[in-house]
Amino acid sequence: MGDECIFCKIVSGEIPAKKIFENEATFAFLDINPSAKGHSLVIPKNHHATMLDIPEAELKDVISTVQKVGAAIMKATNADGFNVLQNNREAAGQVIPHLHFHVIPRTIGDSLKLSFGSQKAEEEELKEYEKRVKEQL
Amino acid sequence: MGDECIFCKIVSGEIPAKKIFENEATFAFLDINPSAKGHSLVIPKNHHATMLDIPEAELKDVISTVQKVGAAIMKATNADGFNVLQNNREAAGQVIPHLHFHVIPRTIGDSLKLSFGSQKAEEEELKEYEKRVKEQL
Repeated sequence: MGDECIFCKIVSGEIPAKKIFENEATFAFLDINPSAKGHSLVIPKNHHATMLDIPEAELKDVISTVQKVGAAIMKATNADGFNVLQNNREAAGQVIPHLHFHVIPRTIGDSLKLSFGSQKAEEEELKEYEKRVKEQL
Repeated sequence: MGDECIFCKIVSGEIPAKKIFENEATFAFLDINPSAKGHSLVIPKNHHATMLDIPEAELKDVISTVQKVGAAIMKATNADGFNVLQNNREAAGQVIPHLHFHVIPRTIGDSLKLSFGSQKAEEEELKEYEKRVKEQL
């Protein structure tokens, strides 16, 4: 998979990127199509397509880097907050099939909209889905 | 803080919720205002406002539960993918100031839109922000 994967090539240096952080297991770089200045991506160095594919220990390494990068981006951009977004599979908007966390700095009054919309669920619906998900856990 | 926090009250059982999973450090329950059926929230049991406030070890516990819950929700809802979204501070759309990860199942062709919009960054801008963020790491 690494042979074809653009993020694997960024990790290996074959494709240049604006690297902001790297440790043994993870790599962070600026998104070249940012939603806000400082928008960064945090990835595992090993190729895993989604959160369903990555071993738990590696996922923990990735979230530690997300935390570090989030704090740094807040300071670097004088942001008022930040979003962490991670999309699994095409249906969820994932474009590059190498697990990545978006870290997106936000300022009060910025024009970014991040909402799926939502509405209050019926009690029966909640009970049904409580049962369904619990059966899988 | 726990005295006032609705999520702390959910953890303690003072406020009822559709609990789908619980372990020593984390708790997961259905969002009562779901963006999709099965939309769940994963939180640390201890009160921490944002990702900037939670100790790294506890954050790792939380992401492990997000991974478990994500896999379960995929099966329980026959989803084609899922989004993981975590908002830090009001500027980022955080409503309840107790760290939480949204886990939102997605199906191909659903009507959910989750996009900030983005545009290609200029090289100079990327260089500037690469420098700024690196200085904070």
